[in-house]
Amino acid sequence: MQLMPVTDSMFLALETREHPMHVGGLALFTPPPDTGPDYLKSLRKELLTDSDVRDVFRLRPATPLSTRGFLSWVEDTELDLDYHFRHSALPRPGRVRELLEVTSRWHSTPLDRHRPLWEIHLVEGLADGRFAVYTKVHHALMDGVSALRHLQSVLTDDPDARDCPPFWGSREPRRNRERPGPHLSTWLRNGRRALEELAGMAPLAARVAREAFREHRLTLPLRAPRTMFNVPVGGARRFAAQSWELERLGAVASAAGVSRNDVALAMCSAALRAYLLDHDALPDVPLVAMVPVSLRPRVSEATTGNRTGALLCDLGTHLPDPADRLAVIRRSMANGKRLFGDLSPWQALLLSALNVAPFAAAPLPGYVTHTRPAFNIVISNVPGPRSHLYWNGARLDGLYPASVLLDGLALNITMTTSGDTLDIGITGCRRRVPHLQRLLAHLEDGLKSLEHAVL
Amino acid sequence: MQLMPVTDSMFLALETREHPMHVGGLALFTPPPDTGPDYLKSLRKELLTDSDVRDVFRLRPATPLSTRGFLSWVEDTELDLDYHFRHSALPRPGRVRELLEVTSRWHSTPLDRHRPLWEIHLVEGLADGRFAVYTKVHHALMDGVSALRHLQSVLTDDPDARDCPPFWGSREPRRNRERPGPHLSTWLRNGRRALEELAGMAPLAARVAREAFREHRLTLPLRAPRTMFNVPVGGARRFAAQSWELERLGAVASAAGVSRNDVALAMCSAALRAYLLDHDALPDVPLVAMVPVSLRPRVSEATTGNRTGALLCDLGTHLPDPADRLAVIRRSMANGKRLFGDLSPWQALLLSALNVAPFAAAPLPGYVTHTRPAFNIVISNVPGPRSHLYWNGARLDGLYPASVLLDGLALNITMTTSGDTLDIGITGCRRRVPHLQRLLAHLEDGLKSLEHAVL
Repeated sequence: MQLMPVTDSMFLALETREHPMHVGGLALFTPPPDTGPDYLKSLRKELLTDSDVRDVFRLRPATPLSTRGFLSWVEDTELDLDYHFRHSALPRPGRVRELLEVTSRWHSTPLDRHRPLWEIHLVEGLADGRFAVYTKVHHALMDGVSALRHLQSVLTDDPDARDCPPFWGSREPRRNRERPGPHLSTWLRNGRRALEELAGMAPLAARVAREAFREHRLTLPLRAPRTMFNVPVGGARRFAAQSWELERLGAVASAAGVSRNDVALAMCSAALRAYLLDHDALPDVPLVAMVPVSLRPRVSEATTGNRTGALLCDLGTHLPDPADRLAVIRRSMANGKRLFGDLSPWQALLLSALNVAPFAAAPLPGYVTHTRPAFNIVISNVPGPRSHLYWNGARLDGLYPASVLLDGLALNITMTTSGDTLDIGITGCRRRVPHLQRLLAHLEDGLKSLEHAVL
Repeated sequence: MQLMPVTDSMFLALETREHPMHVGGLALFTPPPDTGPDYLKSLRKELLTDSDVRDVFRLRPATPLSTRGFLSWVEDTELDLDYHFRHSALPRPGRVRELLEVTSRWHSTPLDRHRPLWEIHLVEGLADGRFAVYTKVHHALMDGVSALRHLQSVLTDDPDARDCPPFWGSREPRRNRERPGPHLSTWLRNGRRALEELAGMAPLAARVAREAFREHRLTLPLRAPRTMFNVPVGGARRFAAQSWELERLGAVASAAGVSRNDVALAMCSAALRAYLLDHDALPDVPLVAMVPVSLRPRVSEATTGNRTGALLCDLGTHLPDPADRLAVIRRSMANGKRLFGDLSPWQALLLSALNVAPFAAAPLPGYVTHTRPAFNIVISNVPGPRSHLYWNGARLDGLYPASVLLDGLALNITMTTSGDTLDIGITGCRRRVPHLQRLLAHLEDGLKSLEHAVL
C-alpha cells in the first residue's frame, strides 16, 4: 500500500456523480486486410489471455472514499480483465453518429472505485467496416496527455508489425518498467507544495485557498465574460469528434505567418462564436480559453502522473472578421506565456472562480453563478506523432480525446494529431450544451472562412 | 415539491456505488411479421415523439443527496427522453449470452440522480431476429413487483392491437392517473411507524434499531448458516436468465401434491446445492430463503410505491434427495407464514444481521463477516398473466427480473410467469458469485431430478 500523491488523490476526492473524473479516448481503426466478421470477437478472446497488465492499470484505491483526506493505492490481486475490456456494438445504421452516441453514454458513468480505474470498449458495427476502441482512465491515474501518450505507445508505424501489446500493456520489458508510485510522488517530496495543495483539498481550508486565489486573480492578464458554458454541470455528457487535414491548417498558418496551433484555436474561436450566436448568447467581450501546457518532456518519458501548466488566451470571439480573430489569438499566445505561478496548474484550474463549487458549494451558495469566471473554456492541443500508426495491422484513422468537465466548465475541446490529421474531441454537459454536434460544422466553417480570408 | 415517503427515500439514502438501488427487467420480443432491418430504429424514433410520460417517470430527487435525512421529489421540467430511452446493440454472434453480458453491465451502473430515475434500452443484434428491452427503475420509485406490473400493464393479449403506450406511458387517460406522491405517503401518515423507520435510517440510530432487531431475531423461526453468498458485495453485477415451461412444473406439483411455487423453490434449492458443492462450500445446515410476499392486491392497483412482506423458507439444501427437499420446502412454506411482525418488511430486510453494513459499516467493523445471517438469499416469485402478451404486435417471449443486492446478499433469484413459461432472473455480485450462469444449468438439472423423483 502506498500513499497517493496529492495531485492524484485530489481527483478522487473531488469526484461526484456530476463530476466524473476520468479522461477518455476514442480511436477509429481500419482492420487489417482479409479479416472476417468474427475478427473482433477472436481478437478480444486472444487479448484476454494476455494478462501482462501495466502496473498503473493494476492499482485501485485502497478505500473507495477518502479517509482523513488521504487516499492510497493497492494492487488489485483479483484483476478481472473481462470486466475492464468489453466487447460492444453499435445499433444500425452504424454511422459515426451512433458511435458518438454510445461514447457519450460511456463517458457519462463514473468508474467503479472498487476496481482498477479503467475500462476499454472494443466496438464493432460501424457500417464502413471499421472498428473503434473507447478507453476510459481515471484522472488520478493519468491526465489526458498521459492517456493519449499511453495509447500511442502501444501502436507502431510499421503496418506489418504484429507484436503490439494490448491496450493495457506496455512495450517495455517488465523489469524496466515503472514501479507504480515512487516516481509519481514528485509532489509529495516537495513538502511545502504538497501541504499547500492539501490545504486546497480539505473543505475547511477551501476558503483560505480561495482567498489566495482571489488575490492572485487580480493579477491575471485577462478577465473572462460569463457565458452559457460557465454554469454548474450535471453528470451526463455529450461527445462529438471529427478530423481535419493538417495540410489545410498548415496552408493557413504559412499564409498568415502564425503557428498551426494558432489556426486550431482560431477554428475553435469561430465555432464558439457561431454557436453562441445561434443561441443569442455571444458576450460583447471576448471569451478566454485556458490552454494547458505540458510540463513534461514529450513521448519518451513516463506516461503516468499529472504535470500540466496553463496559460490564458484571448479568443477574440467578439470580432466578426476571421483574420482579426486569428491576429488576436496569435498575439495573445505569443505574449501570454504567463503560467499561473504560485498555484499549481491544477489547483488553479480547480480553484478558479467557478471550480470551487464541488467542495465548497454549501458554504458558498450561488458562488458559481454569480462570480465572473477566470476563463470560459479549456482548449488543449496535444501533438501526436506525424507518422501513420498501426495496431497489429489495423490502421489508426483518428484518435479523439474526451475530457473532464467541472462546474463552470460545461464544454471542453481537446485536440491531437495522428498522421496527417488534426483530431478534435468535444466534451460537453448534456443538459447545458444542447446540439453539441453543431460545433463540428462550425469548426469546418471556421476553417473555411480562415482559408477564404488569408489564402 | 413533496416530501418522499420514508420507505422510498430509504432506498436513496442507502444507495452507494456498491449498492445501486435499482431494479431491472429484461424482456425478449419477437418482432411483428414483415418488419425490416430498420424496425427498431424507426420504432424508437416514433416513440420519442410520444412524450406522455407517466408522472412517476417525471420525478427526480429535489437534491441528489439527503439533507437532514429527508428527501423530496420534484418534477423534472427538462425531461430528456432521448437520454432515458436508448438504442443499443449486441456484438456478434448475438446470442442470449451476449445479451446477458451487456445487461449485466447496464445493471451495474447507478442511475443519475439529477434526472428521473429510469433508463430503457431497446436492444437489437440478436442473431435470431428477436429484440430485447432492458428497463432500469430506481427502487425509490417502484419495487421489483411494481416494475414488473408496470411493464406488463403497457402490454396486451391482443396480437393485433397497435395502441400500446410506450414503456414509460400508461393506458389510463391522463386525468384518471395517479398524482405522484399523495397516495405513496401511507407510511408518512402513520406517524409512529414513520418515525420508527426514520430512526432506522439515521446512522446514529442504527445501533438502536439493530438492538431491537437482535432481540427480535431470537424469536425468528429459523437460523441460517453462513455461506459464500453472505459477504459484502462490490458494485458490479452478473445477470443470468432463462425460461422453463410451466407445464413441467405443474406436472411435478400435481404428482407431489405441492404448489407450483414450491416446485420453483425446490429448483432453486437444487441449484444452490449443486453450485455450493461445485465450490466445496455447502453448509451442513439448510440454507434459508427470504420469500417476499406482496402486501398489495394484485394487478388492478396502482403500481408505484413499495409494499412487501416476507417469510422465511427452509430450503433443505443439506438433503441429497430431491423429493425430501421438496417436502421440507412444502412444509416450511405452509407453516412459515410468519411475517417479520413489528418491523416493516423492508426494515427487516435492510436491518437483518447482514444488511446493517451500508450505513453502519464504520462503527461495526467486521459485523458483516462475523455474524450469522437471518437468511441466505432472497427468492421472489411474482405471478404474471397467463395469457401471451404483445406489444404493438411484437410477442413477449420472456420477462426476466434483475434485482437489488445488498451487503450479505450477494445473490438474488427473482421469477415471474409470462404466458406458458416461468421466467427466472438471477442477479449476483460479479466478484463474489463466479460463474453465475452455471446456476441456469443447475436449475434445469434440479427440475429434471424432481421429474425423475415424483413422476
